[in-house]
Amino acid sequence: MISFESDYIAGAHPKILERLAETNMESLVGYGDDKYCQMAEEKIKKVCNRSDAKVHFLIGGTQTNQVVISSMLADYEGVIAATSGHISVHEGGAIEFTGHKVLALEGTDGKLNASVIDDFVTTFHNDGNHEHMVFPGMVYISHPTEYGTLYSKKELTDISSVCRKHNIPLFMDGARLGYGLASRHTDVTLPDIAELCDVFYIGGTKVGALCGEAVVFTRGNTPKHFITKMKQRGALLAKGRLLGIQFDTLFADNLYMEISRHAIDMAEKLKSLLKEKGYRFYLESPTNQQFIILENAQMAELGKHVCMSFWEKYDDSHTVVRFATSWSTTEEDLWELKKWL
Amino acid sequence: MISFESDYIAGAHPKILERLAETNMESLVGYGDDKYCQMAEEKIKKVCNRSDAKVHFLIGGTQTNQVVISSMLADYEGVIAATSGHISVHEGGAIEFTGHKVLALEGTDGKLNASVIDDFVTTFHNDGNHEHMVFPGMVYISHPTEYGTLYSKKELTDISSVCRKHNIPLFMDGARLGYGLASRHTDVTLPDIAELCDVFYIGGTKVGALCGEAVVFTRGNTPKHFITKMKQRGALLAKGRLLGIQFDTLFADNLYMEISRHAIDMAEKLKSLLKEKGYRFYLESPTNQQFIILENAQMAELGKHVCMSFWEKYDDSHTVVRFATSWSTTEEDLWELKKWL
Amino acid sequence: MISFESDYIAGAHPKILERLAETNMESLVGYGDDKYCQMAEEKIKKVCNRSDAKVHFLIGGTQTNQVVISSMLADYEGVIAATSGHISVHEGGAIEFTGHKVLALEGTDGKLNASVIDDFVTTFHNDGNHEHMVFPGMVYISHPTEYGTLYSKKELTDISSVCRKHNIPLFMDGARLGYGLASRHTDVTLPDIAELCDVFYIGGTKVGALCGEAVVFTRGNTPKHFITKMKQRGALLAKGRLLGIQFDTLFADNLYMEISRHAIDMAEKLKSLLKEKGYRFYLESPTNQQFIILENAQMAELGKHVCMSFWEKYDDSHTVVRFATSWSTTEEDLWELKKWL
Amino acid sequence: MISFESDYIAGAHPKILERLAETNMESLVGYGDDKYCQMAEEKIKKVCNRSDAKVHFLIGGTQTNQVVISSMLADYEGVIAATSGHISVHEGGAIEFTGHKVLALEGTDGKLNASVIDDFVTTFHNDGNHEHMVFPGMVYISHPTEYGTLYSKKELTDISSVCRKHNIPLFMDGARLGYGLASRHTDVTLPDIAELCDVFYIGGTKVGALCGEAVVFTRGNTPKHFITKMKQRGALLAKGRLLGIQFDTLFADNLYMEISRHAIDMAEKLKSLLKEKGYRFYLESPTNQQFIILENAQMAELGKHVCMSFWEKYDDSHTVVRFATSWSTTEEDLWELKKWL
Repeated sequence: MISFESDYIAGAHPKILERLAETNMESLVGYGDDKYCQMAEEKIKKVCNRSDAKVHFLIGGTQTNQVVISSMLADYEGVIAATSGHISVHEGGAIEFTGHKVLALEGTDGKLNASVIDDFVTTFHNDGNHEHMVFPGMVYISHPTEYGTLYSKKELTDISSVCRKHNIPLFMDGARLGYGLASRHTDVTLPDIAELCDVFYIGGTKVGALCGEAVVFTRGNTPKHFITKMKQRGALLAKGRLLGIQFDTLFADNLYMEISRHAIDMAEKLKSLLKEKGYRFYLESPTNQQFIILENAQMAELGKHVCMSFWEKYDDSHTVVRFATSWSTTEEDLWELKKWL
Repeated sequence: MISFESDYIAGAHPKILERLAETNMESLVGYGDDKYCQMAEEKIKKVCNRSDAKVHFLIGGTQTNQVVISSMLADYEGVIAATSGHISVHEGGAIEFTGHKVLALEGTDGKLNASVIDDFVTTFHNDGNHEHMVFPGMVYISHPTEYGTLYSKKELTDISSVCRKHNIPLFMDGARLGYGLASRHTDVTLPDIAELCDVFYIGGTKVGALCGEAVVFTRGNTPKHFITKMKQRGALLAKGRLLGIQFDTLFADNLYMEISRHAIDMAEKLKSLLKEKGYRFYLESPTNQQFIILENAQMAELGKHVCMSFWEKYDDSHTVVRFATSWSTTEEDLWELKKWL
Repeated sequence: MISFESDYIAGAHPKILERLAETNMESLVGYGDDKYCQMAEEKIKKVCNRSDAKVHFLIGGTQTNQVVISSMLADYEGVIAATSGHISVHEGGAIEFTGHKVLALEGTDGKLNASVIDDFVTTFHNDGNHEHMVFPGMVYISHPTEYGTLYSKKELTDISSVCRKHNIPLFMDGARLGYGLASRHTDVTLPDIAELCDVFYIGGTKVGALCGEAVVFTRGNTPKHFITKMKQRGALLAKGRLLGIQFDTLFADNLYMEISRHAIDMAEKLKSLLKEKGYRFYLESPTNQQFIILENAQMAELGKHVCMSFWEKYDDSHTVVRFATSWSTTEEDLWELKKWL
Repeated sequence: MISFESDYIAGAHPKILERLAETNMESLVGYGDDKYCQMAEEKIKKVCNRSDAKVHFLIGGTQTNQVVISSMLADYEGVIAATSGHISVHEGGAIEFTGHKVLALEGTDGKLNASVIDDFVTTFHNDGNHEHMVFPGMVYISHPTEYGTLYSKKELTDISSVCRKHNIPLFMDGARLGYGLASRHTDVTLPDIAELCDVFYIGGTKVGALCGEAVVFTRGNTPKHFITKMKQRGALLAKGRLLGIQFDTLFADNLYMEISRHAIDMAEKLKSLLKEKGYRFYLESPTNQQFIILENAQMAELGKHVCMSFWEKYDDSHTVVRFATSWSTTEEDLWELKKWL
């Protein structure tokens, strides 16, 4: 059955598998100190245009959010996120597990607004009781968001300014960063992100890797003894090569951007197809995730032939579903889908 | 300066101090195993009409919320509370510190609604992704709430039914319970609470004690090794007598209810006074906390003569302030206040 | 029955109860901001001879250890303690509950040795794998120790030097500090302790108070937002006056030292009595706790008339028991004991 | 340079890479619900001879220890381990990070002794103060141990009996399990382990996989909502296929045992080589890790040509070093090593 269920339904880009095979019998040191991790780091620093950056490789998105956030917050601090943010709802309380509150603010289509953040932090500091409250210690945004939407450069710059004004780091969850960078409707580049964020990650799992996220501390601000913090959180991979080789491959010959663009091309075609057939969009998404409102019976019927993702109840008779394209989506997938629409 | 700042501005009811003095040189065992703790427990069980209850004494409200909630939740569970709930905003993230999320739902005047809870829990279990989410594992309500409001017996019964339907314990924060029970506008009794809640506490700190909260596990449901859990959380008092003697005094000769009623009488007079003078109430509170909307200049002027509590910004030119009466409020306090209104 | 079970079998020194009664109806602000907390802090700073110190009041010993240690350690750090240290064995894992390891080193009669600490920390840093290990981030000592023993000024100075060499704070658990300072066999003064330690506390619970420990951060090194950290750990007392008034009383007119000396006088008489009767001492203790080895049948018999404390199994037929004197021990208690020895 | 530094210096067994390539473009669901995870689980249950077992796949050893231990312990419980156990020293405090104490007992050559465990647990329950102590809630052993040693079937049966007598689960860290099972000096089989342990894991990272450990809950005792617990700890891999395919390959055609035996054959040859040359063994290890005592100058010289692992200081002039073979060690490696010995 044809699947648009998520952007992690396939294995890895074939070049990654080739590279793993080629390097397989080399003796390498563990825990991320191997040459491939170093090569990958150099490539990423270059493409980010930040010579003072430091890159660490982690395995998955929830783990990365948990490790980065809990490593950077003081214990009396929490992290600001949109109520729809991945850390707010879909990580099983991974942030709270480390002792920190997620300070959830209402967003719009998955995005936080700079002035809402500013008001929240300002009000906090003006509250006579703020010593009895959780201090806002970081801002978490996802780009693309969980709804596939993107921040404009202006919006991102505004959020960054609010964070710097209040001396709070800005952290971007880039689990799908490639699809954001490759969108036809963005003015945000990787160097922009590296300039405006204090820390962010470049998602591998959803953009062609078997697993892996590259965390970029953008300005010499890696938490002290970060390796030990990773170890303590069960997040330090013994064969760090697995991550280094994958990212070294993704950031050679522009591969990361190419496969991201392919996913976007497929998404644009998917959108056209859905629009032609009169489907109702839940919101306008410029990236690889498309959200459609289906009548429940229609969803059941379509679900017999196509895998898609239940997103949320819309009303008693309608449901929001998600179609995701990825680096692995093919024209054949779209033709097949067309049959059942 | 006259003070209505909170209900913990004075020491303890004089009878408590007398009792502490009388028993002072008795040799007693520590950690809550002394006879006064036992006597207090028996009195509380009787007034609650629950022979299968178990009572433990803790020191303060935030501590009690933290110990009880973290002792009863499984690690994958969080606690449902109103967004205005004390644990949601004013305990410095004490619940998250123990690894658990506060699942904040919108309330009305500080109160949660049974059907809102039911919808939330039902939706959670129907969500295909709920394994990636924090399980609702307890419902926390405060009675009186942080806004001085009270649940009716009907409302409390409905919440209790929803909890039992979903097999989730109901926990009542009774930091100001006396003032709730003594209100002229309540149909909820202590046996009702003991019947409808799985665990609750009877506040001492704000109702005549130097410190102390009596936690009642209502139906033989004390968490296993609760003493060790208290110890592990730094909450086991060496001289448990300090708590036992206070609660034994408060629950002898109806003292707890008498002093609570006194506070309510004072609050009713305060309300009349404020109404006479044309003050604007933020909401209708049937207990000892009264919330008034003041013009900012007016607040500054009144603040020169009367201690009250900043509550929250109302709009750019107005502020919500709180006046609290307590067991220690006197007619003289009210006369003095009247001068400055 | 006569009791030497612990140093917290009685209530509070009568002057404390008087003082609580005198101040009872004063309106005071909460959370430690009242004038009595300030007065107590000033007295303590003076007697410590440290104008740059900051004093905070907590409720009990385990809580104080938990709050101080977890507030000062980075998350990748643990605390060095003797294997017999209170935090190592008798606090229900309160340190681990906050995420930190107790790095237990063998001591002698309850005391850590400077060179053992030095070796441990030096070896740690020389270990190629130390990034995979818990960093030693603090040294915890108790004075008197759990065995009633005391550090000499030389020993304390040596430990302090090792800590400063490695840039690790030294924390002294002074739950029984008065009995250490008042010992006839010590050359360590309170200013010495304030000079040599980075943080320590002056025990109230075991030295005349109903509850309370005064934490002294000796050199402007209070952890940032310590009030919020206390709140977050359920350790911020609403009626801070209860602690302030007690310590203000204990540190007026030399009361703390006087009652401590009384306990030491009683302990010296107890020792003589036990020696006269030929009892076997487990070790030589210069403070208020005395450890005796009893044949098990003898322990059972004596236990019918005298409360003492089981300490540990000595061998299959003998047990170590503890007799503790305190500020509340009387000559009459000793005469009564003598009857049964 | 030739390397015997660890058993994770190479990538994966070639058959694993082939299998990843073959299945690469299949659309599979995430989070361990794919068919390969199911196939691997079935194969593992079969080889363990436990139809009531449940298998979950995690990524690495420290993570597995952390997730399993913290998921099975009550909050007042700690885990018993040897002082040399991996969780005691080399996981950056990952167990304490989750709030639990490691109760370290002295072992012999890395192994715990049944009667030492029995004494500890029995003494704990007989201690009058045990409510103030951490409850022993699990026993952790590693097999092979960190020193390469193995439990005999008798030793393992004794430990299992002690655990069952005290109703405490037995957990075996099998990061190198293959090398234990394939040793020429063991009478312990995989069905024995599955019978005697409550939970254990079959190491992949060190035995031919890129990453991955297969946790076996042996008797229908998987912790409730274990998937959510994994997610909450950042340990749920999105592309679960990566783990399923690897273990399905390792447990097809006896591959896991074959490659383990190869490593053991290489280790036996290595031992002969070292013995021939007169090297001094630190202890007798029947598995793939061999510990040699080298004079420091000798270590420096050999280190120019051969990668080995610093283990621990032996005395001022000697060091213990480790040589590890693995599935990837070749005869050529041994010949090359021979040159430099």
